[in-house]
Amino acid sequence: MRRQLLDRADVRRAILTFGDDSHVAGHHNPYFATELARALNDWSVDRWLSADTRLASSILVASQLPDEAAKEIKRHAGNPHMVQVMLVDNPYNYPFGHPVFHPIYRAAEETGRPVAIHGGAGGWANPASTGGGNVNLYFEAHTLWPQVVMTHLVSFISQGVFDKFPCLKLLLIEAGSAWLPSLLWRFDTEYKGLRREVPWLKRLPSEYVAEHVWLTTQPLEVSPKREQVTQLLGWIDGGRKLVYSSDYPHWDADEIHYIASRIPESWHRRVFFENALAFYGWTEADLPTHDRMAIA
Amino acid sequence: MRRQLLDRADVRRAILTFGDDSHVAGHHNPYFATELARALNDWSVDRWLSADTRLASSILVASQLPDEAAKEIKRHAGNPHMVQVMLVDNPYNYPFGHPVFHPIYRAAEETGRPVAIHGGAGGWANPASTGGGNVNLYFEAHTLWPQVVMTHLVSFISQGVFDKFPCLKLLLIEAGSAWLPSLLWRFDTEYKGLRREVPWLKRLPSEYVAEHVWLTTQPLEVSPKREQVTQLLGWIDGGRKLVYSSDYPHWDADEIHYIASRIPESWHRRVFFENALAFYGWTEADLPTHDRMAIA
Repeated sequence: MRRQLLDRADVRRAILTFGDDSHVAGHHNPYFATELARALNDWSVDRWLSADTRLASSILVASQLPDEAAKEIKRHAGNPHMVQVMLVDNPYNYPFGHPVFHPIYRAAEETGRPVAIHGGAGGWANPASTGGGNVNLYFEAHTLWPQVVMTHLVSFISQGVFDKFPCLKLLLIEAGSAWLPSLLWRFDTEYKGLRREVPWLKRLPSEYVAEHVWLTTQPLEVSPKREQVTQLLGWIDGGRKLVYSSDYPHWDADEIHYIASRIPESWHRRVFFENALAFYGWTEADLPTHDRMAIA
Repeated sequence: MRRQLLDRADVRRAILTFGDDSHVAGHHNPYFATELARALNDWSVDRWLSADTRLASSILVASQLPDEAAKEIKRHAGNPHMVQVMLVDNPYNYPFGHPVFHPIYRAAEETGRPVAIHGGAGGWANPASTGGGNVNLYFEAHTLWPQVVMTHLVSFISQGVFDKFPCLKLLLIEAGSAWLPSLLWRFDTEYKGLRREVPWLKRLPSEYVAEHVWLTTQPLEVSPKREQVTQLLGWIDGGRKLVYSSDYPHWDADEIHYIASRIPESWHRRVFFENALAFYGWTEADLPTHDRMAIA
């Protein structure tokens, strides 16, 4: 990882998101899943955080037992390198805005940690569910993975998670981003027609996104004309909302210099540096010293 | 309907899509559903098509029994006012590209009828399923209804429906359209990476859409700046792909003059007239004579 990723692009901080292990919340046994999450987090601290000061880790939680997940978040409150609460699989078939998950967000807010939802996951060893029926091919599933994150985002906002936890921030990982503008157009329109069902909401859905939500770059959609995707993302202030993510070491990872070549130069410092500082609440002094910063 | 819709905007042809009755494929009893679809189609012919020459009807099918559905399509082959095969609910939890549904498409192609998928439906009396879990509020469900149609479109193309039935055309009804460009960007990219799983595909997914797929306008997403949504749709040749639909008499129906005010004038003749002729394979001589055509 040092040679292929960190040194190569002068990375000052890389946040680990686990691999197949991240699917703890898809396991049928909630007690086992809770212990597995504890063990994985300890392994991340012992094996990885001790190995390189540039590394930070997600706090994996077994959302089957939200109160136990909250305890696990608090257990890491004193470790500044355990930087975000990560949700992947969904044990309840209700999206992550549902009140059953709220103890997790209360603990995240209390300990000053943002929440990250990792796209693409369904249940243990199963592909993510898709609207209208479950697809049959990996090609279909991979094409439609953003749907899961769309649903969780709509659920988070609609069920008032940000009203209940006003300091909470949310990062959508590995679900792309070009689907967001048209979703927000529809979401705002629906709010105007149906807001009596959600009296706890105080603003337009797009305003909650502007304040509380960030997205990772991976994978940056490829438009026929290069500028189309960044023009589209510009309509939701993409230069301030996108945070570079590599997806290293997956087959479809996006290298830093590839993403740098695809977004406007005026976005580089923010997408590769400042937006992450804003999301995680860091200052530059919180990062390990390094000769240069990524793509500065 | 004459006063509120047909006469008011000089409509020359209106295609009926049923109301709550359209959910036949969500019924648990496949034999009952098959008979119900037959009865509803007969009712549409007797009650509506006889009442006004401007009206045409969808052929509703109970997709629980695809061979019976094929027979029902063929039963109406001789009636030129039964103009499209309509799918709404999904009885099998596999999207509509799955081979179980192919007898329906074979009958549609043989009888020269296009297929229409109506968005928003799930199972009988249930909301449509959403990726990542089932949402809890009508507001959430209504916001995410396009997911169902996204999934069916990806399934149709990925499972080679258009390769197997090269004359088939597909209309996506009441699911909006602004989500399509970013989905196609992703879909084409995934095809380049994963095409070995779908060796029957001969072209990029976006090329199948360009040849075989149309969308109705309802609801046309509302962007913060009026021109954004049509600029976005222009990237997929929206002026040739969109077909006006009213959603009359629903609470969120789009009147013709409202849509006319929101799309470029250069699109009017196509969106309100020519694109429907192209999709249904009509010439102007197939339409009832009228003083003027809609928004000409």
